[in-house]
Amino acid sequence: MENSTVTNTLGLRLAIERMPVSRIREVANKSMGLADVIPLWFGEPDVETPQFIRDAAVQALADGETFYTPNRGVPELRTALAAYSSALYGVPIGEDRITVTASGMSAMMLAHQLLIEPGSNIVCPTPQWPNVKGTVDVLGGDFRSVPLNFTGDDWELDLDALCAAVDDKTRMIFVNSPGNPTGWVMPREQQKRLLQYCREQGLWLVADEVYARIVYGMKHAPSFLEHAKPDDRLIVINSFSKPWAMTGWRLGWLTTPGRLGERLEILNEFNVAGASTFVQLAGIVALRDGEDFISQQVARYQNARDYVYERLVEHTRIRVARPRGAFYAFFAIEGIEDDLAFCQELVKTAKVGLVPGSAFGASQEGWLRLCFASEINTLDKALTRLEEAIAA
Amino acid sequence: MENSTVTNTLGLRLAIERMPVSRIREVANKSMGLADVIPLWFGEPDVETPQFIRDAAVQALADGETFYTPNRGVPELRTALAAYSSALYGVPIGEDRITVTASGMSAMMLAHQLLIEPGSNIVCPTPQWPNVKGTVDVLGGDFRSVPLNFTGDDWELDLDALCAAVDDKTRMIFVNSPGNPTGWVMPREQQKRLLQYCREQGLWLVADEVYARIVYGMKHAPSFLEHAKPDDRLIVINSFSKPWAMTGWRLGWLTTPGRLGERLEILNEFNVAGASTFVQLAGIVALRDGEDFISQQVARYQNARDYVYERLVEHTRIRVARPRGAFYAFFAIEGIEDDLAFCQELVKTAKVGLVPGSAFGASQEGWLRLCFASEINTLDKALTRLEEAIAA
Repeated sequence: MENSTVTNTLGLRLAIERMPVSRIREVANKSMGLADVIPLWFGEPDVETPQFIRDAAVQALADGETFYTPNRGVPELRTALAAYSSALYGVPIGEDRITVTASGMSAMMLAHQLLIEPGSNIVCPTPQWPNVKGTVDVLGGDFRSVPLNFTGDDWELDLDALCAAVDDKTRMIFVNSPGNPTGWVMPREQQKRLLQYCREQGLWLVADEVYARIVYGMKHAPSFLEHAKPDDRLIVINSFSKPWAMTGWRLGWLTTPGRLGERLEILNEFNVAGASTFVQLAGIVALRDGEDFISQQVARYQNARDYVYERLVEHTRIRVARPRGAFYAFFAIEGIEDDLAFCQELVKTAKVGLVPGSAFGASQEGWLRLCFASEINTLDKALTRLEEAIAA
Repeated sequence: MENSTVTNTLGLRLAIERMPVSRIREVANKSMGLADVIPLWFGEPDVETPQFIRDAAVQALADGETFYTPNRGVPELRTALAAYSSALYGVPIGEDRITVTASGMSAMMLAHQLLIEPGSNIVCPTPQWPNVKGTVDVLGGDFRSVPLNFTGDDWELDLDALCAAVDDKTRMIFVNSPGNPTGWVMPREQQKRLLQYCREQGLWLVADEVYARIVYGMKHAPSFLEHAKPDDRLIVINSFSKPWAMTGWRLGWLTTPGRLGERLEILNEFNVAGASTFVQLAGIVALRDGEDFISQQVARYQNARDYVYERLVEHTRIRVARPRGAFYAFFAIEGIEDDLAFCQELVKTAKVGLVPGSAFGASQEGWLRLCFASEINTLDKALTRLEEAIAA
């Protein structure tokens, strides 16, 4: 996109007029009206929300739970989230640190509103979900990308390079682990070092941990919450969407120092005012009874991950790391010079929906994202089509 | 609040640290643990959402409608909103102009994000719901207040004064009619003149019409949509909360020129990503089958309005206008010098929950807001307590 030619022809803020259309959507839109496309572009579990969570929402509706809630969320949900986090990480996390939001996305917007304004910047490893930069763009800040290194069979963050990108305008370091799209999981020791660096610099650390439960070979991903003191400048974003298959519900939460509570109450009020009341009440039940569902889903995803990885890695033109978390395969096909054009062609001819890596700030040369939260036979069919397309 | 003494002690943006706590909440918090308080502070219908709307959500949950929706909303809801608006106002409004949001509040935040940045300002009649200024504060803009005139038995806007507050940094004129807290309804002719002024100046007009259906003696309040061309710089904010008693659901919408659709799709993605899927589907049923409910509620509110108005206006120390819309009585008690202190004392001793007018930018000298969306016997009891308190 040639931003230099953009003027505010709509009469809006230039920052808003300049924002590019999502490259995820640019491809997905092309598929409209096309039959038999296998859509592996969106980051969404392929199953409906479990019945027991839906039942809880139905019960809350029957109980007349249709009125406003406090801006930081239903107190019982905040208590349940504090207990859930404390148990998961083995450290006490008080409910004064929990703010319920109307999605993980809303949690991210609130976190950024606390810190980002014109003249400030954030430093963030990439490739990265484009909404992080999108949020910064809305607030007029500057997004500084530090590329993860692809080692051939894994992704690695050079912590020195990350810290070298910090300057006196930096208001936060943003880390998404497990990472979308790479499946990178930040090692525990590196988390400790980064947290210590942020302490020394007085910097905020904002961690997007929405895939904390979607990891392979461990109960949860390392979390900054395991190492942080309650008053550290740490903000953790989380969401019910992925672990409990609740994407359409719009329910997330923030874990912050308790002293931010009043500010977040104000900000929630001025953004959405909060999540739906009966959705919040269903969230309590998801936390209480959802562990079996999470285990089952992660086992399914792990099978799908291994299947997709093995198929991709054996292809001579494909480079890929085995994802450690999340549910995406992020891989590069040798010889592709324009990932967007490739994806647009792929959906038209091979009828497989992937996302170009450049959507995440990767180079345009052949990186692609495939969501493997799907059945093996669907993935098999998609991979066969892809293999045929690149063999042609 | 002495802003001059605020520094960013939390390490956040100064604009965020400076934002005052809501004066609505400041009083409500004091009531915690107090028994027998009659709470007339919040702007919320006193009845549960009608059963047929709850049933629609239950059905959508049973149907497995738990996945992401398009960022501008479920297409069938956008179609239904376009048809609803077209029928209500007798002008064609296309679905390309409709964007579904995760509340009226979210609709307002998106509208402001399109236009407001540091260095810009908005011009707005006051007293006004504090969230308008709150949103502008978050985005670093400047809020310019133009007081409505209290004539003794009505509220009036001096359009010349409003336009005189506009300068070359003004990005929008914001009008909330029917107005919270005053119940003011902008006359149709004045709307036409303001729209014409905005056209001539190239200014955006943002209209908060969430109380459009809560009006007395007319089917709906005059709307800018009745006079506007589809491509006028007009943004209308609306919500399901008040007419359909759906405050806890979080569902609103924007009506804009169609050319803003792509920008709003992007902004919705980066704020909340949208309203709950099954909530949106229930919204379709609310539009289809909700007219009887709205008529019944407005008839109740009208009785309550007349009852409260007659009680207040006959009191020698009270000045009040008969509200033309919304469900608030906004009145001044002679001799009160500090409205916040009065409300705090009132809830403690007389056990009636009101909101100080200064929460809305009114002078602190004795203005109060009472929400009359309640039963007559409750209102009777509250007014008796209030009368006794000011007689003491």
